[in-house]
Amino acid sequence: MINLRNDYSTLGHERVLKALLEHKDNVYLGYGLDSWSKKAEEKIKELLENKKVEVHFLMNGTGANMILLSHVLKPYHAVISADTGHIYVHETGAIEGSGHKILTCNNQEGKILPDQVEAICKAHTDEHMVKPKALYISNATETGSVYTLQELKALKKVCIKYDLYFYMDGARLGVALESCLNDIKWSDLCKLFDAFYIGGTKNGALLGEAMVLVNEDFKENFRYHIKNKGGMYAKGFVIGLEFYELFKDGLYMELAKESLESAKLLKDIMEEFGYYTFYPSSTNQLFYLVDKKEYEVFLENVSFELLGENEEGYLIRFVTSYASKKEEIEKMRRILEKIRR
Amino acid sequence: MINLRNDYSTLGHERVLKALLEHKDNVYLGYGLDSWSKKAEEKIKELLENKKVEVHFLMNGTGANMILLSHVLKPYHAVISADTGHIYVHETGAIEGSGHKILTCNNQEGKILPDQVEAICKAHTDEHMVKPKALYISNATETGSVYTLQELKALKKVCIKYDLYFYMDGARLGVALESCLNDIKWSDLCKLFDAFYIGGTKNGALLGEAMVLVNEDFKENFRYHIKNKGGMYAKGFVIGLEFYELFKDGLYMELAKESLESAKLLKDIMEEFGYYTFYPSSTNQLFYLVDKKEYEVFLENVSFELLGENEEGYLIRFVTSYASKKEEIEKMRRILEKIRR
Amino acid sequence: MINLRNDYSTLGHERVLKALLEHKDNVYLGYGLDSWSKKAEEKIKELLENKKVEVHFLMNGTGANMILLSHVLKPYHAVISADTGHIYVHETGAIEGSGHKILTCNNQEGKILPDQVEAICKAHTDEHMVKPKALYISNATETGSVYTLQELKALKKVCIKYDLYFYMDGARLGVALESCLNDIKWSDLCKLFDAFYIGGTKNGALLGEAMVLVNEDFKENFRYHIKNKGGMYAKGFVIGLEFYELFKDGLYMELAKESLESAKLLKDIMEEFGYYTFYPSSTNQLFYLVDKKEYEVFLENVSFELLGENEEGYLIRFVTSYASKKEEIEKMRRILEKIRR
Amino acid sequence: MINLRNDYSTLGHERVLKALLEHKDNVYLGYGLDSWSKKAEEKIKELLENKKVEVHFLMNGTGANMILLSHVLKPYHAVISADTGHIYVHETGAIEGSGHKILTCNNQEGKILPDQVEAICKAHTDEHMVKPKALYISNATETGSVYTLQELKALKKVCIKYDLYFYMDGARLGVALESCLNDIKWSDLCKLFDAFYIGGTKNGALLGEAMVLVNEDFKENFRYHIKNKGGMYAKGFVIGLEFYELFKDGLYMELAKESLESAKLLKDIMEEFGYYTFYPSSTNQLFYLVDKKEYEVFLENVSFELLGENEEGYLIRFVTSYASKKEEIEKMRRILEKIRR
Repeated sequence: MINLRNDYSTLGHERVLKALLEHKDNVYLGYGLDSWSKKAEEKIKELLENKKVEVHFLMNGTGANMILLSHVLKPYHAVISADTGHIYVHETGAIEGSGHKILTCNNQEGKILPDQVEAICKAHTDEHMVKPKALYISNATETGSVYTLQELKALKKVCIKYDLYFYMDGARLGVALESCLNDIKWSDLCKLFDAFYIGGTKNGALLGEAMVLVNEDFKENFRYHIKNKGGMYAKGFVIGLEFYELFKDGLYMELAKESLESAKLLKDIMEEFGYYTFYPSSTNQLFYLVDKKEYEVFLENVSFELLGENEEGYLIRFVTSYASKKEEIEKMRRILEKIRR
Repeated sequence: MINLRNDYSTLGHERVLKALLEHKDNVYLGYGLDSWSKKAEEKIKELLENKKVEVHFLMNGTGANMILLSHVLKPYHAVISADTGHIYVHETGAIEGSGHKILTCNNQEGKILPDQVEAICKAHTDEHMVKPKALYISNATETGSVYTLQELKALKKVCIKYDLYFYMDGARLGVALESCLNDIKWSDLCKLFDAFYIGGTKNGALLGEAMVLVNEDFKENFRYHIKNKGGMYAKGFVIGLEFYELFKDGLYMELAKESLESAKLLKDIMEEFGYYTFYPSSTNQLFYLVDKKEYEVFLENVSFELLGENEEGYLIRFVTSYASKKEEIEKMRRILEKIRR
Repeated sequence: MINLRNDYSTLGHERVLKALLEHKDNVYLGYGLDSWSKKAEEKIKELLENKKVEVHFLMNGTGANMILLSHVLKPYHAVISADTGHIYVHETGAIEGSGHKILTCNNQEGKILPDQVEAICKAHTDEHMVKPKALYISNATETGSVYTLQELKALKKVCIKYDLYFYMDGARLGVALESCLNDIKWSDLCKLFDAFYIGGTKNGALLGEAMVLVNEDFKENFRYHIKNKGGMYAKGFVIGLEFYELFKDGLYMELAKESLESAKLLKDIMEEFGYYTFYPSSTNQLFYLVDKKEYEVFLENVSFELLGENEEGYLIRFVTSYASKKEEIEKMRRILEKIRR
Repeated sequence: MINLRNDYSTLGHERVLKALLEHKDNVYLGYGLDSWSKKAEEKIKELLENKKVEVHFLMNGTGANMILLSHVLKPYHAVISADTGHIYVHETGAIEGSGHKILTCNNQEGKILPDQVEAICKAHTDEHMVKPKALYISNATETGSVYTLQELKALKKVCIKYDLYFYMDGARLGVALESCLNDIKWSDLCKLFDAFYIGGTKNGALLGEAMVLVNEDFKENFRYHIKNKGGMYAKGFVIGLEFYELFKDGLYMELAKESLESAKLLKDIMEEFGYYTFYPSSTNQLFYLVDKKEYEVFLENVSFELLGENEEGYLIRFVTSYASKKEEIEKMRRILEKIRR
């Protein structure tokens, strides 16, 4: 079986796991007040070229999104998202569970456009409707695309015009910034967003995401809020140590690159056999629409996810990661040959 | 510095960390649907001598308490707790944040008595007050004491009489069940409680708690609820693997015993010098009331927590764990001698 | 100015207000436990031909929807609605504020179709998404249309198939059931819905809505839930007395008929001048798309609401009520003549 | 039966009800944006001698408390209250339902003392505990006592020291300010409190409370929040009209005085027969501890509430209102004579 199920199906990168083992006898302050968390925060601030942000290490992505948004929104505030947004589709109502409506529009290749944001803001005119107050995007998006700097600047402009916070879910930020279509630098991020998180889970960490708070107003009592929402981790030093390992010498970017190389290889092989991605993707998620026979052959030989099925066929997703092995991906040729026969 | 700060100040037990490293290249299904989680669940069911319970691996204690209670309570339901209860004091309003009042009474050496529970139930008579629906206890308690089987049976009786769910926070269940004053067997737990969790974080795991659902009504859609509350972990296999390692051959109990041995040693040394615990404790948390001079000497030589300070003195807490080193604890003699001089 | 702003712009029907004055010196039990509430409940049960339902008198519509839905849904449950649904558009996130996602689809003349409900249910497959658990409709709808019995039966069938509660917002139930297109009898309602409310505010009452609980599971502790959500009214007897007056001899239906007669008159006059409703409506809400000149003339002569404006024109809403005066509506002719000149 | 059950057992004062009837044909803007609400707001501002406050008319007391507190508190913020506080005891967890812990201490004759507030603030030291952010008092208190100006100034000082909002529940503000022990003027209120409400329901209104926002920060988007919490009333002009009637010429104070006169008469009669109030009260709530025989005689002849029963006897509550008739209260003598025989 070729593993193309997702980018969080192995425990974590060897260097990360070894670092944990190496420091097993050390004693640390709990709840993220330790020296590793401090050092990791410093590394990230250097990378972002911003000394004023705060970095908080959180346990998981859904938690991160919910904790941040419920921290900055009042009960009548809503967050705007593309209808493919992870917070809208795949978080089991966590945002609504914390009391906030998500306002959506049709995604444009996984993205949201400034005009769409503006239209939503204009349609919300009085106190009988929610008040849009934040814009959520994910980069890379849920369909594998990435935002360009120009697109983000245009969104930022709308956010300023309508007094919206601009928040980025960076569960797959690594592959976004290493994507061949990316033109955003790490140092651009703090100029664009009020907050964003750098995803660890899907890029080599055992667990953990690094929430970066840029907007000064977000910083007050954020640790209280993390705890109130059940997201505080006693052994915060674990995530601190992981992120230090990932960022001290560029391992994080290396892993993203490896993931993208595997994705490129897979995409090329698929194209050789006439399979083109269903959504344009320059990252590590590749979607294909296949027929019943194809689906069944894949099912026997590849570990992947089925996202939907209708009269037009089966929509399947292949995901690569740093842990993908190129020699395994090469085996896809044999599978495709079997189908073509 | 002698480390007596808490039982979660190191990364995790060597065997646990090595198991993680060993399986780093394996591929698993996400979100707790993996084989390790299954195997760990089986081990725990064997230990509990109950094949019908469900075991769900959660990330942390506050999350576990909040997820369970908000799953089983309706908005007007309240949970009863001693006023020392972790959910009442030290979870930054996470339970209230999920919408539920906590009704408290004066703790009796960290515990709650059946008469107190009954009095609270009787005082809540109509729809202008909340309806008590669950009883929360922690074992070991926050002050280091443990419940006897007879005490738990008496509480259970009140729960049945007033239609309360009985829930145990087992953050420190290991040391509770290994305590010299304990007379409860693992196999008693499912007869007593509707749900409880077995704490990993404070007894050797890197992270994770095992929530055991006994009451059939609790099982429906519990995974939906975990996700809704932001508590689902993509790499659930990490916790599954940890708990399998901890429970496959009794490591969990061994670690609790080691912690208790260190605590016993420390307590004996303290008594040699005339220091008796402020709260009766048979587990790994020892509280002492000391004067300013004593406090300052400790501060220089020991890592610990100050819980409060008033005209009577300083209330401090020493905590041992499996990672405590006996030769280090022996050094306490020298410190006490210094004080006594 | 012709008042066509809405159906809640006067205090209440004379008979209702006089009844209040008449009983001003009587003494009643508080919080809805009084004799008037009992008598009103009996009248409503007679009308519904169902002795087993419970009737609870609530203060307002948004409160009623939120209290009912948050009573019956678990945190991970969602409610399905047309995208014109009052709960989705015009309740400032009250449902999400109580923790629940609303899943929407494009309305079909203000309604939702069985296939749409089914598609939403099918798309929600696992614990990473919310679980649809209730279907919300309003009748009459927000655009003035009404459901037929056949349509409701088809929706009910889908609800049974997917284990959804079926709930009706009856803010304008009076005009729905008196509409010329209606074929539903009062006695059908309990066979269709798990719960629904009969709107008082928009049909003659000073305040109040009558929530009818049909599903046995909804009855337990509903009064606790009302209070928990801040919706309990000390002088519940006020609403009880109002509803008794409205239902003791058919006043409620009379008022709805009067409202519809005024709407018919208005619609006919508008058609005389070539204005056809933007949405098909057989009730007391009439929507028209007008140009700038028309809009400005209306603005000078009629009290109404502007719902939106774009390059195609101005979408305006005229609403009649029992309090509309026919001689006033006749004046619309002169206004239209002025426009046509 | 002498009616001493409560101060909200009749529909409302005759003048209020007549005013409603008189204006029944008028047409108003909905949701509190009408002219009566404006005029009532102006009257109240005059009385308070403060032109900058905002007045919002809300439907009921529990709603008012919950809406205000959930508007100004962040999720990790707690509100401090005496353990007799209405929000703590008699609102079915509405405050916790909106996500906030209530921190309590033993009431001192229904009140809370500055030292108690300070002790609670000092005990909450870090992000593992909630952060106290508001102080709730009710005046008159739930046991019938009133605060003096000096007491309130002392509480205000603590609020400033610990950065707490100071909020007063004025469900029974009328009798508090007319009490013989009161030394607070209406014009003092805005100097003391960040917000408070003036209770209508328990002093002559059919329904409604007037929330006064003093703190500038509270004003932003308050109407959004009212709607979000389900507390917005379509016919807001009803409450506006009521409050205008109550405040245009001092009716509100007159009704409070009448209530207090009846209470004084009742208290005197009770004392003649040797019955002294259980709690000191200078307002319209009188509590007595009686034995079984006494209780049974009262039960036959008086409508009142039983608050608790134990070996020491029955704690009962008599409440007067403007609607109490003095000739009826005089009948209490005969009842007491019957008991004494």
